[in-house]
Amino acid sequence: MSSSSHSFPPLDPPARLLMGPGPINADPRIHRAMAAPLVGQFDPVMTRYMNQTMAVYRAVFECDYAQTLLIDGTARAGIEAVVISAIEPGERVLVPVMGRFGHLLTEIAERAGAEVHTIDIPWGQVCTLEQLETALKTVRPSLVATVQGDTSTTMLQPLAGWGDLCHQHDALLVCDATASIVGNTLPTGEWQLDAVTCGLQKCLAGPPGVAPITLSPAFVERVNRRRHVEAGIRDTQDQPQAGPRIGSNYFDLPMIMDYWGERRLNHHTEASTMLYAAYEAGRIAVEEGLAAAVSRHRLHGNAMAAGVEGLGLALYGDQSTRMNNIVGVRIPEALDGEAVRAALLQDWGIEIGSSFGPLKGKIWRIGTMGYNARQDCVLMTLAALEQVLRRQGHACPQGGGVDAAYAIYQRAEEGAVQ
Amino acid sequence: MSSSSHSFPPLDPPARLLMGPGPINADPRIHRAMAAPLVGQFDPVMTRYMNQTMAVYRAVFECDYAQTLLIDGTARAGIEAVVISAIEPGERVLVPVMGRFGHLLTEIAERAGAEVHTIDIPWGQVCTLEQLETALKTVRPSLVATVQGDTSTTMLQPLAGWGDLCHQHDALLVCDATASIVGNTLPTGEWQLDAVTCGLQKCLAGPPGVAPITLSPAFVERVNRRRHVEAGIRDTQDQPQAGPRIGSNYFDLPMIMDYWGERRLNHHTEASTMLYAAYEAGRIAVEEGLAAAVSRHRLHGNAMAAGVEGLGLALYGDQSTRMNNIVGVRIPEALDGEAVRAALLQDWGIEIGSSFGPLKGKIWRIGTMGYNARQDCVLMTLAALEQVLRRQGHACPQGGGVDAAYAIYQRAEEGAVQ
Repeated sequence: MSSSSHSFPPLDPPARLLMGPGPINADPRIHRAMAAPLVGQFDPVMTRYMNQTMAVYRAVFECDYAQTLLIDGTARAGIEAVVISAIEPGERVLVPVMGRFGHLLTEIAERAGAEVHTIDIPWGQVCTLEQLETALKTVRPSLVATVQGDTSTTMLQPLAGWGDLCHQHDALLVCDATASIVGNTLPTGEWQLDAVTCGLQKCLAGPPGVAPITLSPAFVERVNRRRHVEAGIRDTQDQPQAGPRIGSNYFDLPMIMDYWGERRLNHHTEASTMLYAAYEAGRIAVEEGLAAAVSRHRLHGNAMAAGVEGLGLALYGDQSTRMNNIVGVRIPEALDGEAVRAALLQDWGIEIGSSFGPLKGKIWRIGTMGYNARQDCVLMTLAALEQVLRRQGHACPQGGGVDAAYAIYQRAEEGAVQ
Repeated sequence: MSSSSHSFPPLDPPARLLMGPGPINADPRIHRAMAAPLVGQFDPVMTRYMNQTMAVYRAVFECDYAQTLLIDGTARAGIEAVVISAIEPGERVLVPVMGRFGHLLTEIAERAGAEVHTIDIPWGQVCTLEQLETALKTVRPSLVATVQGDTSTTMLQPLAGWGDLCHQHDALLVCDATASIVGNTLPTGEWQLDAVTCGLQKCLAGPPGVAPITLSPAFVERVNRRRHVEAGIRDTQDQPQAGPRIGSNYFDLPMIMDYWGERRLNHHTEASTMLYAAYEAGRIAVEEGLAAAVSRHRLHGNAMAAGVEGLGLALYGDQSTRMNNIVGVRIPEALDGEAVRAALLQDWGIEIGSSFGPLKGKIWRIGTMGYNARQDCVLMTLAALEQVLRRQGHACPQGGGVDAAYAIYQRAEEGAVQ
């Protein structure tokens, strides 16, 4: 009751260059789109915007799945909606674990009542098609859940052939692509992924808080076996309720599809402003072209990786399977990694990331994502890092980072980068 | 794969005066606040903003509960987080059902595995303290869940005395106040509510998409019995995992409290832009003063109710227990309610609402909420409604709505409205 004793100043965030694992600086176009006025949730204008958002994300996910929509929550809300809607208690789920987000998938599936089996891969590596096949034969899961890019390790899981293999073994394949989408190739339709989830705050260049997802016809058929309509809005035309209810109302995908579908059955009230952000983020990606966006992320990621090595630092993990948009950097033994991060943030306004669990204190993570996958961001980060390392007593070649990055840009101009 | 055949124009929403049950036009201050740049999720600036947001919502909820924070999702995300974290499968939950949102609470609790008992109240009425007491004695629930304002019926549930009564019967009391907060008195601490949830899109004058909640110490103690830390970020200092895990990772309140608390254990990535919106919405309410805000909503709601009657239309439900910020209007038999709504929207840019279930096609719902709880909005809506009714062949007194509203404003100026 001490409200009168508080003062609540306006928020006035400082300028930051966000070169960590996300969120990154949003594209100013997205800020402008979010300033648009609200309309009612069943206004024909709003439902048209919802349809346009579905269409733009079909292009972003590179698929023609009808059920492509937004979950109103952060990226893991999309994951949970997919997993909790697909799994009935007692079903077997297979999860390759090669970083923090494998653990997260495991945990979400367990809470949904699944019997979860994991393929345990050392952090910094990825899962092979052979390892997947062996596990499919042994476990016989009804669902395989993975992440394309596990930001905790910076690794990119190759997924070509996974969909086909899972389907041969009667399993659906779901994949979170929050960290990787737009920065790395992800042809959902060609790879036969049954559900893909993501967020905006990485290579889509938007703010966190909404989760675009896409669902294959087979996935939709599966979750619709448990379709229900809420008592308060049920109609005479609604079928008797079938199958055990999904363990969440908020993440009940059949209900959410009814809201996004022609019946427009009210579920939640769509987060209009975040929808505006998602639509604009999707538009930006489609306008650039997905192939061009992936190339851009590869170029600037390579420049950052080369630059970091040019400063005498070692990269983390198998570089042949690194995400284009983020590099892991081993923190030299003699250095206090958090002191370096603090100096970069406080004195230079530049954020880079740390990591989790076994990698806590061991690596930094430097992102080149979305709006910040740009030459000026790469050069500035490397120049600042050089000065901070030097001032903390860590010798590094003068200009070694910047020169190595320039060399990558030079080669790209000469057409040598594929 | 037909992305090239689509064109994705920029979103350019038309001007709308949103006088339905929400969302309503956001206060322009909130749009400006949302344009602020992003900062990293563990930036000291961001964690300070999180703390300030907690403080401002303690003032909005009128309580001193330490655990006052945001759930990243729409209003019902807040409800589900509270219910699913508090209930272990098999526990008894009591829900008074007097509209659509009572059904929703029932459904969320059932999906969490609760044995749900309802107090069934005719739509348009509210639940008495005596009815509650009888049910508490019979059912002996561990949790009572209710809504303060059920937008589907426009009714306001009186809650004074409920907390004390529930506690006498060893039940915690949780309440959703999405539709009512800031428009109606809600002293969470004084009324001993154990959890209150809301959204921004009604009297808080913000966009939908984030859910402020507050939790009493007793509620926190209860959910913390099932506190877990995710495998990917677990630390040696973390206790062995206790109790059955909460059925959702996304809505696991102990984890969310660890993210908002001093340890800042990563859970989701906070939706920064929606946090900016929530903070500014809370600031606006606190600056106006909660008592003044409630008076303003009462005044304009009364003017709208009088105006509607002045047009010869009948109000819906017991007016002595109506929310200040919304009126239900019986649609005259001879009129097509949807045609009236369509004309208002298409020709006048004004949105009013319909309703759900048994009230579908029976009532309109007209809101005077947040930024739109203003005299000009009330007068324009009544004037437009008069013209639309007349042109659809429904006789009504010329200026009858506007004059009746002016009479309320006149009386208020003379100090006659309490």
